[in-house]
Amino acid sequence: MNLFRFILLFVFVMPAVVPAQEPSSHRFESEHGAFIADSVASGLSQPSAIEFLPDGRAFVLQRDIGEITLIDFRSGEQVNIGNMPKMLKFSDSGLHDIELHPDFAENGWIYISYSEGEEVHSTVVFDRLKIKDKAVSERERIFSADAFSENSYHYGGRIQFSGGYVYLTVGDRQHRDKVQDRSNHAGSIVRLHDDGRVPADNPFIGVEDERDQPRPELWTLGHRNPQGLFVHPETGELWENEHGPRGGDELNLIKKGANYGWPEISFGFEYDGGPIGKGIVHEEGMEQLVWVYVPSIAPSDLVIYQGEAFPAWKGSFLIGSLAFVHLNRLVLRDGAVVAEERLASGLLGRIRSIAVDADGYIYLGSDGGDIWRLRPE
Amino acid sequence: MNLFRFILLFVFVMPAVVPAQEPSSHRFESEHGAFIADSVASGLSQPSAIEFLPDGRAFVLQRDIGEITLIDFRSGEQVNIGNMPKMLKFSDSGLHDIELHPDFAENGWIYISYSEGEEVHSTVVFDRLKIKDKAVSERERIFSADAFSENSYHYGGRIQFSGGYVYLTVGDRQHRDKVQDRSNHAGSIVRLHDDGRVPADNPFIGVEDERDQPRPELWTLGHRNPQGLFVHPETGELWENEHGPRGGDELNLIKKGANYGWPEISFGFEYDGGPIGKGIVHEEGMEQLVWVYVPSIAPSDLVIYQGEAFPAWKGSFLIGSLAFVHLNRLVLRDGAVVAEERLASGLLGRIRSIAVDADGYIYLGSDGGDIWRLRPE
Repeated sequence: MNLFRFILLFVFVMPAVVPAQEPSSHRFESEHGAFIADSVASGLSQPSAIEFLPDGRAFVLQRDIGEITLIDFRSGEQVNIGNMPKMLKFSDSGLHDIELHPDFAENGWIYISYSEGEEVHSTVVFDRLKIKDKAVSERERIFSADAFSENSYHYGGRIQFSGGYVYLTVGDRQHRDKVQDRSNHAGSIVRLHDDGRVPADNPFIGVEDERDQPRPELWTLGHRNPQGLFVHPETGELWENEHGPRGGDELNLIKKGANYGWPEISFGFEYDGGPIGKGIVHEEGMEQLVWVYVPSIAPSDLVIYQGEAFPAWKGSFLIGSLAFVHLNRLVLRDGAVVAEERLASGLLGRIRSIAVDADGYIYLGSDGGDIWRLRPE
Repeated sequence: MNLFRFILLFVFVMPAVVPAQEPSSHRFESEHGAFIADSVASGLSQPSAIEFLPDGRAFVLQRDIGEITLIDFRSGEQVNIGNMPKMLKFSDSGLHDIELHPDFAENGWIYISYSEGEEVHSTVVFDRLKIKDKAVSERERIFSADAFSENSYHYGGRIQFSGGYVYLTVGDRQHRDKVQDRSNHAGSIVRLHDDGRVPADNPFIGVEDERDQPRPELWTLGHRNPQGLFVHPETGELWENEHGPRGGDELNLIKKGANYGWPEISFGFEYDGGPIGKGIVHEEGMEQLVWVYVPSIAPSDLVIYQGEAFPAWKGSFLIGSLAFVHLNRLVLRDGAVVAEERLASGLLGRIRSIAVDADGYIYLGSDGGDIWRLRPE
């Protein structure tokens, strides 16, 4: 063996003997003490939502392959739910969210959102379903957004229950021209009864001015791609985070009938650096954001933490970061962000989903394929 | 030469042929475009303040060696001012700030703050002086803080003029027990006429309750180590940032007679992780902070940017970070921080002072010994 071949061996062959298995735990420092992230499930594809069942198991969505996977984190058992609806699985389409009905223990209803249509003509739809013997046994359409696009981006799709209603987010589908047009659902949050009926006191019902004829389902408008939605456990307020343009990722307090300004006003810039819309951040009649990430972190899921395991984080807003691969913690007081901390940077991968179990342990779904469980050291 | 000696040569000798001179420019990305930092002065020791003169030259303080250095950034000429007052130069003591009187062009007054006393018994004092032929020609004591300590930490020492008054910050001198006691000046901001007289409408004048007899110079209390102080160019509000405990670095809007809570209330923790004071963040009669850095960045100087060179940063709060070695940019709206950006991370060193010249270029004094001038790429 000559030297050249020896070097080739070293460069190209040696790495292959390194174990393929990454360590399944990482230790991180935080302002309020160290914590450990343990991998409690792996091999998952784009886990876009984690929803705990009363028995401690959890549904995990695998977005791009369109599977609801029932996982027992104690035994490690994973079961894919059968008889799933037909959906589009392409680019950013797939399964977006899953949420149990507040009375799930009595009625068994599970709400999901997913992309429906063809690669060149799709929208986001919301169903409720029941599961029996590890398969969908019953299913009803709750809402189909009039937010069709020839591309497969910006679906939104988050689901939250509050005060007897269900709130659903719809992305702008990269059709900015449709967002301020209230005669479709692109770039909005809609409010419905749990069976899909439209509440009679929705804000745009009966509004027919020179501008357009608004859809009755609309609750707010002017959003871009809302991927986080959470009801504050103490105040009952609805909070939302959305992917803005470059430098314009927003946290918003959702108010009935409000217009969040996209694409007219934004803190962000076009990816080439130019201004967006009117290049302004404030306009009469449009709602102001509470927080904007500069630079953009690509915020995913949102949870307002109330658990016991991390007492110092009680009341904190936990937001997953796809682009900056960390768990973002915001501290709010009197409706304003007063502190931001970036937790678990780097090692856990792109954080796509967040959930908290009954003991307050935090679960993060990562594009690396793992569900990471956080516990204090 | 055998192989071993060859390797030794490579490892230990080769680096010596690398030029000792570091590059004098760095390029950084930001949300609003790339910018360049050029070293425009070097060899300075702890540059704790930069103050431009009308002719474009600047006074730079060298904290630990107690020098006022007059620098012409165009020619590079540096001149140390002679006939300086005697001061303590030890640990964190030395020269803290320099500020021109608003009518400097007419009256020639320059205000400085520095540590006075012995290593085991010192405080912070404020003088005004005139400079002639590169030496102090005249000097008057404006204020000597009753904030003596046996250690050499937490002096504060920032100076700002506003509305005909001069505002001065005094650190807590690591005597927490003195901060809520209004009969001394530790942990306070004081307000004086420009000649040192006490304004008749200062908030604690005439207040003599069961608690203590407050000093008439006090404007606010409950501060820890305020190293940033700046009058908002548009609103006239006085803003302050201070080194808190671990996880408790604060940005505050300074209001007449307010109590900022140290050490009773704080977002921070003891360095061993335990609670501070009552372990609470809110108490009746104490002012709430606007922003807290988690984790602590060790904020130094504060400037509210109004220059032309970086139009996207207009109105931003620029704060130097000693611990996290970057320039921190906060975006405020309606009195709340809505965005934070970390600029020029790492390469420029611990940022101790900030100034803006007439064209809007930003100057950063670094513990690496350089003054860095920022310009858009």
